[in-house]
Amino acid sequence: MSRRLTVHPDRLLPADRELRAIARELYAEVADLPIISPHGHVPADWFADDVRFADPTALLLTPDHYLTRVLHSHGVPLEHLGVGQGELTHEQSRAAFRTLCRYWKEFRGTPMKLWLESQLVEVLDIDLAPAEDTADEIYDRIDARLAAEDLRPRALYDRFAIDLIATTDDPCDDLAAHRRIATDETWAGTVVPTFRPDRYLEPARPGWNDDVDRLAQVSGQDTGSYAGWVAAMEDRRSYFREHGAVSSDHAHLDAGMLPLAPEESERLYAAARGGTITPGDADRLRRGMLFEQARMASEDGLVMTLHPGAWRNHHGATAARFGPDVGADFAVPTEYVRPLRPVLDAFGTHPRFRLVLFTLDETTFSREIGPLASFYPSVFAGAPWWFIDAPEAISRYRRAVTESCGFGKTSGMIDDTRALLSIPARHDMARRLDCAYLAELVADHRLTLDEARDTAHDLVVRQPRLAFALEGEDLR
Amino acid sequence: MSRRLTVHPDRLLPADRELRAIARELYAEVADLPIISPHGHVPADWFADDVRFADPTALLLTPDHYLTRVLHSHGVPLEHLGVGQGELTHEQSRAAFRTLCRYWKEFRGTPMKLWLESQLVEVLDIDLAPAEDTADEIYDRIDARLAAEDLRPRALYDRFAIDLIATTDDPCDDLAAHRRIATDETWAGTVVPTFRPDRYLEPARPGWNDDVDRLAQVSGQDTGSYAGWVAAMEDRRSYFREHGAVSSDHAHLDAGMLPLAPEESERLYAAARGGTITPGDADRLRRGMLFEQARMASEDGLVMTLHPGAWRNHHGATAARFGPDVGADFAVPTEYVRPLRPVLDAFGTHPRFRLVLFTLDETTFSREIGPLASFYPSVFAGAPWWFIDAPEAISRYRRAVTESCGFGKTSGMIDDTRALLSIPARHDMARRLDCAYLAELVADHRLTLDEARDTAHDLVVRQPRLAFALEGEDLR
Amino acid sequence: MSRRLTVHPDRLLPADRELRAIARELYAEVADLPIISPHGHVPADWFADDVRFADPTALLLTPDHYLTRVLHSHGVPLEHLGVGQGELTHEQSRAAFRTLCRYWKEFRGTPMKLWLESQLVEVLDIDLAPAEDTADEIYDRIDARLAAEDLRPRALYDRFAIDLIATTDDPCDDLAAHRRIATDETWAGTVVPTFRPDRYLEPARPGWNDDVDRLAQVSGQDTGSYAGWVAAMEDRRSYFREHGAVSSDHAHLDAGMLPLAPEESERLYAAARGGTITPGDADRLRRGMLFEQARMASEDGLVMTLHPGAWRNHHGATAARFGPDVGADFAVPTEYVRPLRPVLDAFGTHPRFRLVLFTLDETTFSREIGPLASFYPSVFAGAPWWFIDAPEAISRYRRAVTESCGFGKTSGMIDDTRALLSIPARHDMARRLDCAYLAELVADHRLTLDEARDTAHDLVVRQPRLAFALEGEDLR
Repeated sequence: MSRRLTVHPDRLLPADRELRAIARELYAEVADLPIISPHGHVPADWFADDVRFADPTALLLTPDHYLTRVLHSHGVPLEHLGVGQGELTHEQSRAAFRTLCRYWKEFRGTPMKLWLESQLVEVLDIDLAPAEDTADEIYDRIDARLAAEDLRPRALYDRFAIDLIATTDDPCDDLAAHRRIATDETWAGTVVPTFRPDRYLEPARPGWNDDVDRLAQVSGQDTGSYAGWVAAMEDRRSYFREHGAVSSDHAHLDAGMLPLAPEESERLYAAARGGTITPGDADRLRRGMLFEQARMASEDGLVMTLHPGAWRNHHGATAARFGPDVGADFAVPTEYVRPLRPVLDAFGTHPRFRLVLFTLDETTFSREIGPLASFYPSVFAGAPWWFIDAPEAISRYRRAVTESCGFGKTSGMIDDTRALLSIPARHDMARRLDCAYLAELVADHRLTLDEARDTAHDLVVRQPRLAFALEGEDLR
Repeated sequence: MSRRLTVHPDRLLPADRELRAIARELYAEVADLPIISPHGHVPADWFADDVRFADPTALLLTPDHYLTRVLHSHGVPLEHLGVGQGELTHEQSRAAFRTLCRYWKEFRGTPMKLWLESQLVEVLDIDLAPAEDTADEIYDRIDARLAAEDLRPRALYDRFAIDLIATTDDPCDDLAAHRRIATDETWAGTVVPTFRPDRYLEPARPGWNDDVDRLAQVSGQDTGSYAGWVAAMEDRRSYFREHGAVSSDHAHLDAGMLPLAPEESERLYAAARGGTITPGDADRLRRGMLFEQARMASEDGLVMTLHPGAWRNHHGATAARFGPDVGADFAVPTEYVRPLRPVLDAFGTHPRFRLVLFTLDETTFSREIGPLASFYPSVFAGAPWWFIDAPEAISRYRRAVTESCGFGKTSGMIDDTRALLSIPARHDMARRLDCAYLAELVADHRLTLDEARDTAHDLVVRQPRLAFALEGEDLR
Repeated sequence: MSRRLTVHPDRLLPADRELRAIARELYAEVADLPIISPHGHVPADWFADDVRFADPTALLLTPDHYLTRVLHSHGVPLEHLGVGQGELTHEQSRAAFRTLCRYWKEFRGTPMKLWLESQLVEVLDIDLAPAEDTADEIYDRIDARLAAEDLRPRALYDRFAIDLIATTDDPCDDLAAHRRIATDETWAGTVVPTFRPDRYLEPARPGWNDDVDRLAQVSGQDTGSYAGWVAAMEDRRSYFREHGAVSSDHAHLDAGMLPLAPEESERLYAAARGGTITPGDADRLRRGMLFEQARMASEDGLVMTLHPGAWRNHHGATAARFGPDVGADFAVPTEYVRPLRPVLDAFGTHPRFRLVLFTLDETTFSREIGPLASFYPSVFAGAPWWFIDAPEAISRYRRAVTESCGFGKTSGMIDDTRALLSIPARHDMARRLDCAYLAELVADHRLTLDEARDTAHDLVVRQPRLAFALEGEDLR
């Protein structure tokens, strides 16, 4: 017997009646505000070409490593879910979807359940709860819906009331898709690129030399020297800036940035190019290159977002067979105060520099990130990300950073997702949780209702604009 | 004037009326389910011999280092509590019990208060609150009760509705007590051994050589070489498996497991046997030996439970006078993602391998343990243990791991105790707290009531069976 | 249009009606109890001279780096707030106050908002909420109030019902102000010094040699040798003890204390005096010196308070221009179990030794500090401090430490402030939050109401007396 699927209008609001009444009132003010998505992974091509999604599994399951990861943890082989399989046959696609529905109970207590249920009900008009015996019917209904024009990316962008969405792009990308969108007079969406140069900053990574060669080609700068590498980076950042980029994004194992003396950078760079650099020197060079990015940021105004602390491709056999980004990346203890000392010493009060700090290590919220954001004008406390972009963790984040840096030095919601269909659900979740927290502050008289109302609005509207310099102004 | 002691039927359920109503409903479904205790320290002899407990102090106080530790922290010398004193005279025993009652208020806010009060009321029929002026009367009443048959271990096992209980045993143990229980047709309890080889994996520990000699004798394998040590371990694991063991338990300072090349293991092992191994090499050898245990686990199917991060015998004078396990062990920061990389790379998706991760460092719940359990089929997030097997910490655990790995990759309740009388109170506490958390998820519409009811049942019945492979099946 | 400013009588008490009723009842019992402030930074001169505060900005803003830090994080230059500017003109002072009011919304969710609002309403009789358009009127009203006798330090001490307040003092201080207070028969306040020898324990710090020379002069001991340094320290500690000191306070980057062999201390000390000590040796010497302080503490009975883990003067340009203590100090991950092993091994059960552990790294509450306090008679879990002396963090602290060490091994509230006017608000906040937590324990039947009432009282009265040995008795 199949169960009806609904999403409750009060979901994620506090259970206590008085608190819920306050939270509802706050939420009503922000529920329908436009979405600003300054960091994410939806491909620009989707908007440029207004693609049609192939089938329910390709739409919802295969590309979402949050879902495939959990199924894998219950013994489902990734290949059964379409991961790394190219296009699936109809039967394979249906079988994968059935597996998802069969294991649906394993998502209880996770945000994936909330996001998917919200997409099913609110975007896809499905009113059946996923289960083994409803899988085929749900699959067929979604499949039928996919033909409609209103499920194509541009229609979704408009329907979701997105104000701005950022993609994540390789520095050598020609941003042709972004250009096509910008010059297309038939659609007014704002899709901006993000400069993501990680691979060019890891001299110990196999393939680095080839990447740096390609960088030379694209930038027209000779990357045979460190100075040339710097010039090439400046060239590409400028290209991205011209194409609307507002930020550069950086994810290395640690947060270290450390200036190198010119002769030392050249020496280490030459060793790296020659393939003779030691692991320790490769780390030093990387930290020097990241410091250089910060210096450029203080000049060109691209906001720097930092996501350190992820150990990538933890399981060798999975990486070998399925490639990266399939859910086998994990977190290690992370520091900010110590490794960021040099860069904040240099640019921490620079009027054009902004640094948004993300983390997978929650211990840093109250110990390091909140306090740093509470002193340095340039530093913003980034929203919880990845494993911790979930109700309980988001609630812990607000409780951990607000008491040092207030609401006004936080980044606003970052969805960081490739799953276009889930974007409203993710932002809605954050808005509900922020209102729930603000309701507590009102109920125990830490804030007046008017103050909370204003802050709820700021968290959706002001904070992303401020943290990502969307108005372009200097900080002081 | 003495105060009546009661335990409230709604204890540990949420204060909010609506939440409490939901939690009560969930709790009613699981309150009386049998207890599965797959890891603990009750001696097998107690069941084999169906011993009679000596007196109230020997029953409740002296062997419980949770209680003696807190009294010690208020300046009570351990010897006044009977620690390390052999059998106490009646007057000593009564005096120790009086001390416990006099300091009873110092346990407010700790789980020890809840457990002891539950034992007093629900097992021992005491209705007086412990205090200086009630100590003697409580003592006398318990003493009188101890003569009754229904307070002997087998009767308690049956009365507590225990389904299975695991002991913790030295690899050289002949498991005679377990055999006596298994072959005794007059009692149907299931008491299984657990393979705990720590002492044989610490080549730097004084006495290691003697232990390894004894291992040779017992296993009939020549432990003069590393290969012999491996063969001896395989022999004893197999012996334990034949006697019903379902898991091996491991507690070293860090979680590191690292394969060694055969020649290197032999070289390090020879140095250890010869007494010339360096501390650094002893650590490497230990990590190699632990990796070897994981390899064996992937073959023989003993679930591997890991309890790293405890600094043992912190206070020298206490250790010298009273020995180990008297409450002077503490925690250090612990990592899992990095040190477990090699072992999970090798066996993380092996169908027979299971690894239950326990911690004393709560920061690892959301940062490392939950995420690892949310990808690797073999990994389970172990219940909070030791200093953190307490209401607030258990609640933090659920909030920290569930959002990544769901409920379905958690271990179920582990009581880890030698205090037989406290086992129902400990499991009951966990059930109440899980229902309290599930009630929150229902109240703010993250789960339906039916989903929560099913999960509450799973946490008591399915999860320990799954994590400890009690059905014996492979994971995929 | 200006908004009326009020403080609600139930602020910080739980929203739930039943919980709030319990919390109110508990709070009523402790709300008016005298304040014990055994660690803080109010200058003794203020009481000795009964100074008059200059103007609203000098009273409330400039010296409070909690406030100036947050304003700085929003781009306000510190010099605009009077930091490091000497005396301000009336117009500068008024302009700074206007800036504070203009940015007032940025303090939402921080404790600074609660403290300042409480001071405005309850001490200064201001009923206008700070805002750009109320700034001048608030400024004028406070300015007028400052002339009154009842806003001078001695009147405030009496009005706030302070029982004892500790200052923080350099070992070379002659404590003349304390002496003047003690011998002044017209006022009965108790103002005791605290021995803060950090600068004399950092041999790598520029200026250390001069400081140690000064120490020789003041103590009459030849500090040319380590033995002389020790004798000088003993002399000054004794001087402080005679002048009423109850504790010594210590803040180094890590918590390490490690005994040195006599010849080694002399060797390292000589190198330090000679300016040739290496950074590593300077750390070793510092840890040896700190161990020596612990040894002295076990003899003279000064309670040792430890505040490790702060990285000072993170932003070079700010330090160069404005000096230390302007809000640019941050936290690094901190350990206690490992670095305190030697000192607790030596003095952990010494009847006269007491060690109060503070932290900026919350992860240590449940992992290290609570457990250590739950075994060692000498160890107390210090109240949350600095970035974490705020409602959410204080609530986390109680939840994290109580389950291991109970309420009875915690320090009681420490305000650690220079802002005399804010002391009642800070202690009141802690009392409310403790009652809120106790109310939860009552509501879910972990404590009876009588137990909670007794504990609420203990937290205000017994715990600071116990942790700071105010009755002077040994621990056992």
